[in-house]
Amino acid sequence: MFYVSDGTAITCETLGHVVLGQFSFEPNEKTFPFVESEDKLTDLTKEIQQSYERHGVKPLVFFSMVIPTMRAQLLKAPAFFYDVLESIVQRVAEDTQIEPKPKLQRSRSVSKDSDTYFDRISAIEYTLAHDDGVSLKDLDRADVILLGVSRSGKTPTSLYMAMQFGLRVVNYPFIADDIASLRLLPEFEFQRHKLFGLTIEPERLTQIRQNRLSGSEYASSEQCQQEVAAIEALFRSEAIPYINTSSLSVEEISTRILERTGMKRRLF
Amino acid sequence: MFYVSDGTAITCETLGHVVLGQFSFEPNEKTFPFVESEDKLTDLTKEIQQSYERHGVKPLVFFSMVIPTMRAQLLKAPAFFYDVLESIVQRVAEDTQIEPKPKLQRSRSVSKDSDTYFDRISAIEYTLAHDDGVSLKDLDRADVILLGVSRSGKTPTSLYMAMQFGLRVVNYPFIADDIASLRLLPEFEFQRHKLFGLTIEPERLTQIRQNRLSGSEYASSEQCQQEVAAIEALFRSEAIPYINTSSLSVEEISTRILERTGMKRRLF
Repeated sequence: MFYVSDGTAITCETLGHVVLGQFSFEPNEKTFPFVESEDKLTDLTKEIQQSYERHGVKPLVFFSMVIPTMRAQLLKAPAFFYDVLESIVQRVAEDTQIEPKPKLQRSRSVSKDSDTYFDRISAIEYTLAHDDGVSLKDLDRADVILLGVSRSGKTPTSLYMAMQFGLRVVNYPFIADDIASLRLLPEFEFQRHKLFGLTIEPERLTQIRQNRLSGSEYASSEQCQQEVAAIEALFRSEAIPYINTSSLSVEEISTRILERTGMKRRLF
Repeated sequence: MFYVSDGTAITCETLGHVVLGQFSFEPNEKTFPFVESEDKLTDLTKEIQQSYERHGVKPLVFFSMVIPTMRAQLLKAPAFFYDVLESIVQRVAEDTQIEPKPKLQRSRSVSKDSDTYFDRISAIEYTLAHDDGVSLKDLDRADVILLGVSRSGKTPTSLYMAMQFGLRVVNYPFIADDIASLRLLPEFEFQRHKLFGLTIEPERLTQIRQNRLSGSEYASSEQCQQEVAAIEALFRSEAIPYINTSSLSVEEISTRILERTGMKRRLF
């Protein structure tokens, strides 16, 4: 399986992996990004040819190529080709009766846009500065404040939302010492509408903490059960919306937070 | 434009945005993730109906739905529909003569896989602990060590590579005081093969630093020119591969680093 693009090929890889998830085979995979020169295209078609000769079956090529001559040359190689964009672009053009931009004017890299760049960097910086309770300043600029016990998924979720959605995320952990008398910090009182809780099955939390600090009190089943029970009680008594992250990927947690809060992505 | 999925809809959004990049129109957009119940589907089809009545044109729906009855019901709404997966899945099945998995067994969330989860979290943690020269311990576990002046894109690139590629990234800044006598730290001597440089046009660096600390010495044109000249001289004299990040998105920088080093993504 080859992923080929005159850009990063990330869209090809992403779509290719979702498509692969629908089948039971696990192919060898190779990515050719930034195929913008004749030389690179020649190297690539050689590899496709070799793969075909070695295995006796045509490889699958998920691709996106803007320049028509390069595209035509690629399509001569012995492979099954899947253009991840072109058929949809053509259908959108037919359905809407709107012409697509001329091929060579198509913007392949939205992130070159300077505002987008600064928004993203600024969201990442804000989120890093507010990771794990390090700072509770400047909370009025936050889009969302995640609360949860240690290892419930706050840091990866915060960074994902900053990086991919352009949102400013604060996350604050409750530690073992807090558990006996769990309460909201006064800093959060004016930001109540931004609070969002992450919880997790105690068994899953124990597994994750054992993976980190095997045999510790922190990773014990009892400690995990107590912390989860206490934080869920707090979420309920304070009417803080929360979700259980146990079987969710970072993408799923982040999307569920958008869905529950009604927040919108700032970036795509 | 609606993005609809029984999963996160992130693939629909991503592909939809690349397709939109090929046209000149800017539609209103709304995402419906996790459409797994009749109720949600009813809400969604009502919104599609309302959009159609309000604007007098059919909205565009980029979607992915596994359950056949739900899919069929969605397709009755007045819209132009683009199934981001199904046509490619069908073509792959025809080309390879391999049957796709039964619809309801298809894994929609690869990240539920526990090893993948831990790999990703571990890469993020390692990278956070080694951001901005904070720690130079444990460098033998690094996949890559990024070097560059302040604001050349090291932190966002490092976090992106950890989050999306599962790689462990160290980044180390050179600060103004280093510039007069720039040299490699002894810690990096045994890791030479992992070193990778980021540079940037002095004008772009000035713009980025002005955005952060307007009017400072740090953001002055002279300072930026000196730092860039010094670090590029170091990269050349030490034979460290490097790229210019001035007009690149974080995705493009990260992909170019993979391409130049031959490193592979650990995660998709």
